[in-house]
Amino acid sequence: MRIAIDAMGGDNAPEQIVKGAMLAIEQYPGLSITLTGDEQKIKNYLTENDRISVIHTEEVISSSDEPVKAVRQKKNASMVLAAKEVKEGRADACISAGNTGALMASGLFVVGRMKGIDRPALAPTLPTLDGKGFLFLDVGANMDAKPEHLLQYGIIGSIYASEVRGVDNPRVGLLNVGTEDEKGNALSKAAFELLSDAPVNFIGNVEARDLLDGAADVVVCDGFAGNLVLKSIEGTALMVFTMLKQALTSSTASKLAAAVLKPKLKGIKDKLDYSEYGGAALFGLNAPVIKAHGSSDATALFNAVRQTVNMLEKKAMPTMLEKIKSYNEQNQEG
Amino acid sequence: MRIAIDAMGGDNAPEQIVKGAMLAIEQYPGLSITLTGDEQKIKNYLTENDRISVIHTEEVISSSDEPVKAVRQKKNASMVLAAKEVKEGRADACISAGNTGALMASGLFVVGRMKGIDRPALAPTLPTLDGKGFLFLDVGANMDAKPEHLLQYGIIGSIYASEVRGVDNPRVGLLNVGTEDEKGNALSKAAFELLSDAPVNFIGNVEARDLLDGAADVVVCDGFAGNLVLKSIEGTALMVFTMLKQALTSSTASKLAAAVLKPKLKGIKDKLDYSEYGGAALFGLNAPVIKAHGSSDATALFNAVRQTVNMLEKKAMPTMLEKIKSYNEQNQEG
Repeated sequence: MRIAIDAMGGDNAPEQIVKGAMLAIEQYPGLSITLTGDEQKIKNYLTENDRISVIHTEEVISSSDEPVKAVRQKKNASMVLAAKEVKEGRADACISAGNTGALMASGLFVVGRMKGIDRPALAPTLPTLDGKGFLFLDVGANMDAKPEHLLQYGIIGSIYASEVRGVDNPRVGLLNVGTEDEKGNALSKAAFELLSDAPVNFIGNVEARDLLDGAADVVVCDGFAGNLVLKSIEGTALMVFTMLKQALTSSTASKLAAAVLKPKLKGIKDKLDYSEYGGAALFGLNAPVIKAHGSSDATALFNAVRQTVNMLEKKAMPTMLEKIKSYNEQNQEG
Repeated sequence: MRIAIDAMGGDNAPEQIVKGAMLAIEQYPGLSITLTGDEQKIKNYLTENDRISVIHTEEVISSSDEPVKAVRQKKNASMVLAAKEVKEGRADACISAGNTGALMASGLFVVGRMKGIDRPALAPTLPTLDGKGFLFLDVGANMDAKPEHLLQYGIIGSIYASEVRGVDNPRVGLLNVGTEDEKGNALSKAAFELLSDAPVNFIGNVEARDLLDGAADVVVCDGFAGNLVLKSIEGTALMVFTMLKQALTSSTASKLAAAVLKPKLKGIKDKLDYSEYGGAALFGLNAPVIKAHGSSDATALFNAVRQTVNMLEKKAMPTMLEKIKSYNEQNQEG
């Protein structure tokens, strides 16, 4: 198995990306990696290994580039070249910690859409209190989703949860403003009907306030709502920690108390850190395309590789393709 | 000035509602209050006062009642009677800590919609790090909003912020998935255009993660998105505090440290407690209709009364009516 990795994407590229790739090579004997990016810079951190090859390019897509335009114009950007490795069959999957929008565009235009899926979805795994986490999709690939899209997210998300994450009969929930069946806007009401008849363990509507409590194993919504909720969770956690830090350093007594509590607080922060679960997968493409967090260090990048290896080993994509195909066939017959 | 208060709404009714009303009577010499509900139960907590009257009823709308149906069928429910006091001119505003949906229905069907406003919005004031707070609308009154609704929220929200909350030239932001002008779904893109030409200090798109940092004084969005974001914030804050509590009581050393830090943590919790800012106002009705938090104690109910008195004294509703009227006239001419 070979994974193409954009060595120039993210805040800590290429150093942490290259180091993360080397960790993965050590861990997985059957894995080969292709790094795309500035060969000179990459080699500063790379220990020679016959399972790591480098494709040199000096072109890079930055975080401020307009995604679609950048992918169309910068045809030799490190991210686009990584996607091209997948498209042309030289790699089985690709990973980048760079511009999220550009990676979605690279996935769509270069890697290509999975047959039977109308719109790809961006799907991170978020932490829950019990440590199991839940798959959340879509968090921003598809802004104006239709009910059928949410149905498809439910089906492919459920496969990811069971096959890759090992969740038994994953509970699929629809993000909504209340748990009662008839709640929501026009989109969520129509999606509720479709999901009720879908070949998934649909548990109905779940509320935003119950997500981190593990209300469902897979939560589906449109990309606009999902992105807002994801960022609300991040922003609130960050604010509470900022306030805590201020409080803990505001007097000598609290500083002493804080010293005792520091490891505990670190533990809480770690529990909330969703890079532990790998990157956000782009679902609905012909191969796994994984967005690692922009601030990824070597460990976070390694986790994204581990997730990708898992997806490939468990044949997540072929299973999704098959299930969507059979659902569509049955629905046309019906 | 007279305010009608549903004495039976909320988890701590009627005791805390009645006590909150008495606090307000003490504070505001020009205020009279009508309490609606079970007279016998109310009188258990009420000190006789010639500025407090009671309208007796035994009918109550519970939190599990289907809102619209309940308001239509339970015509003598304490909440509906409070709204009727406003409709028939015997009160200037009403307050309830009961079923939110039913209060929205009472506002719409009994109190009535403000001329020029298509859809009312539910607008709480949320806390920010700097303690100033921001007005957030809509958080659930109008699930399938149109761009014009968001424009109207911007105009009336801006008036509330300047006239009632005393914010100078309030910054109006559009909740979106990114700060760049062209971001978002079809609704937010269209609303962006309308708000750009509106008679408000429109600062463009604001992200969910920056809300608690005080990114804007007034943040507008559709009721579905707003409700999800509000509940994400609540849910995340609650989860972090739950984890903190677990961590702080997990060993003797941390228990000791926790004792030192307890007042600080309490301070953080208080800062996040938005009942401090009063209730959530229903905007776009003929009179102030205020939803106090379901778990309101006497202080929270008092804060909701203070907010209502403020809205009446500052003539928020007539100013909104006038501004919307003049905007609509100019737009028809243009």
